[in-house]
Amino acid sequence: MATDGDALESQAAAAAEAARELREAAASLVARRSADEDALRRRATALDADLRRLQASLSTLAPTTLDKVEEELERARVTISDSDVAAFLPSKRNGKFLKTFVGPVNVRVARKEDKLRVKDEYNNYRDRAAYMFLLFPSILLLLRWWIWDGCLPALAVQMYQAWLLFLYTSFALRENVLIVNGSDIRPWWIYHHYLAMLMALVSLTWEIKGQPDCSSKQRGVQLFLRWAIMQGIAMHLQNRYQRQRLRTRIALGKAKRMDVVAGETAGVEGQLLLLYPVLFTLQVVVCGILLVVMAVGNFVNTMETLMLKLRFKAKMKRAKSRQDLSRQHQN
Amino acid sequence: MATDGDALESQAAAAAEAARELREAAASLVARRSADEDALRRRATALDADLRRLQASLSTLAPTTLDKVEEELERARVTISDSDVAAFLPSKRNGKFLKTFVGPVNVRVARKEDKLRVKDEYNNYRDRAAYMFLLFPSILLLLRWWIWDGCLPALAVQMYQAWLLFLYTSFALRENVLIVNGSDIRPWWIYHHYLAMLMALVSLTWEIKGQPDCSSKQRGVQLFLRWAIMQGIAMHLQNRYQRQRLRTRIALGKAKRMDVVAGETAGVEGQLLLLYPVLFTLQVVVCGILLVVMAVGNFVNTMETLMLKLRFKAKMKRAKSRQDLSRQHQN
Repeated sequence: MATDGDALESQAAAAAEAARELREAAASLVARRSADEDALRRRATALDADLRRLQASLSTLAPTTLDKVEEELERARVTISDSDVAAFLPSKRNGKFLKTFVGPVNVRVARKEDKLRVKDEYNNYRDRAAYMFLLFPSILLLLRWWIWDGCLPALAVQMYQAWLLFLYTSFALRENVLIVNGSDIRPWWIYHHYLAMLMALVSLTWEIKGQPDCSSKQRGVQLFLRWAIMQGIAMHLQNRYQRQRLRTRIALGKAKRMDVVAGETAGVEGQLLLLYPVLFTLQVVVCGILLVVMAVGNFVNTMETLMLKLRFKAKMKRAKSRQDLSRQHQN
Repeated sequence: MATDGDALESQAAAAAEAARELREAAASLVARRSADEDALRRRATALDADLRRLQASLSTLAPTTLDKVEEELERARVTISDSDVAAFLPSKRNGKFLKTFVGPVNVRVARKEDKLRVKDEYNNYRDRAAYMFLLFPSILLLLRWWIWDGCLPALAVQMYQAWLLFLYTSFALRENVLIVNGSDIRPWWIYHHYLAMLMALVSLTWEIKGQPDCSSKQRGVQLFLRWAIMQGIAMHLQNRYQRQRLRTRIALGKAKRMDVVAGETAGVEGQLLLLYPVLFTLQVVVCGILLVVMAVGNFVNTMETLMLKLRFKAKMKRAKSRQDLSRQHQN
């Protein structure tokens, strides 16, 4: 017994000593790591400033030189943003939204592969959400017709509304994380989700009236659910289309790998028509205004994206014809 | 113009070259860093396993040796948890809640100082929340009596309920972050905040009835607000008390620096009595059940904490008397 105790005592003392050694090792590793990272951060920041300065002085150039220099600068920028260097540049905006919800924690991912994993997970989450977005209101309307005898129970609708609130909150948080990690998602789509959160919140305060005369009292809710089904279809189709396009653009080197697809409702302005009847009921008016604001925002942003694409295409054409020209000269 | 263009062109080419060099430097830094971290992680994991094994074999020891070995082991554990080593141990639970809201991002803070900053910010956030928790319902009840002529407007109450939902969500998220970072906050306080989120959500679906006969229709809401004021006072007092106590315990080496105060409602079971009338109105019954569950949970957890403390005190007394004894032997 005593020998056993002595053995354990010396083992415990050895463990305490090992813990102290490990503490020193960890402290020196952390210190060395910070020093290395600071050095790289300084180099990255200096290069970034150089690139900005060069970009700013492009306006003085003749068109022929301009394209070549611009391409060189773009290549340098992609080299930075698609490699581990990006993690060492100060991040664009460390969202106040994110900080309010999660606290002052660093959500920046250090390794390139982890970054892409975060982005992939976001895209998968969007896909799953699109299915749910379609299924949830469909099931509610189906059960209403099939089992509930034309009258939606308040609890079922409120659970759906609570799910919407959760979904938009998680979208907004995840998109803020993506932005911190260097994705160029348009700020509008995040504002869009803030507004959608507000809409879901307001919808939760609706009074879901019951029998008698249920189906006329619940017309607003029904329209809301039908609009959601439309939205779900649109989301789903767009996710598929945009992911394919993004994959092509990344393969062609026209998009960074941290870019995400634009937003789930871009270009589905037809849904606006569906919403007018909803606006007639007073309690729904706030949601209506929010939906209109969101639709207008979506439209403006989609148009801007379209204009950018057209300009990009024109530039590519110019670059291509120049290449052809120089090839002809060589031949 | 041409020379200017040539100069810019060569500068752009140099920048692109610098970007490529920086990419290699960053990649090698990241690779070296992972290798260093993996090595330290292996050492930390091995030591942690050793400590567990030793702890498990303590039961065979005689009481006199036991205390000494236990102290040694505790010292080793504190050395690990209060230093940079902690960041290299696998974290306890990477909350599913956090992952669902924010995505698969690492919220673990690498540096010890940043960790303490996260914890301090959480405590400050709790303090600010306690003030708001007291002020918001007080102002609502004051305005009801002073300006609103005995009738709370639905919007004001709903804004308060939405704020509650936000507050509890942010608490739950921040506490999950703290747990990932090695705080030993009791899981109950996080479950408590999940339930509180549910309660705030349900309260949002209440119908806030207006005139005529407003004050009797709104009795449930008034009770809810009064309960919240009580809660706010309790939160505030406890925050002050527990922070002081925590500071003392950290100074005495009895608590790790990542520990947080227990929870805002521990020990305020008197509030339960206030709640009974609320339970009579049917729509409020769900919130009522949730509040009862929360109160029971708080009580159980507070008792458990108390028991732990008593045991700790008894142990300290034993250790002290042993020290005194050995000192007497030396003299």
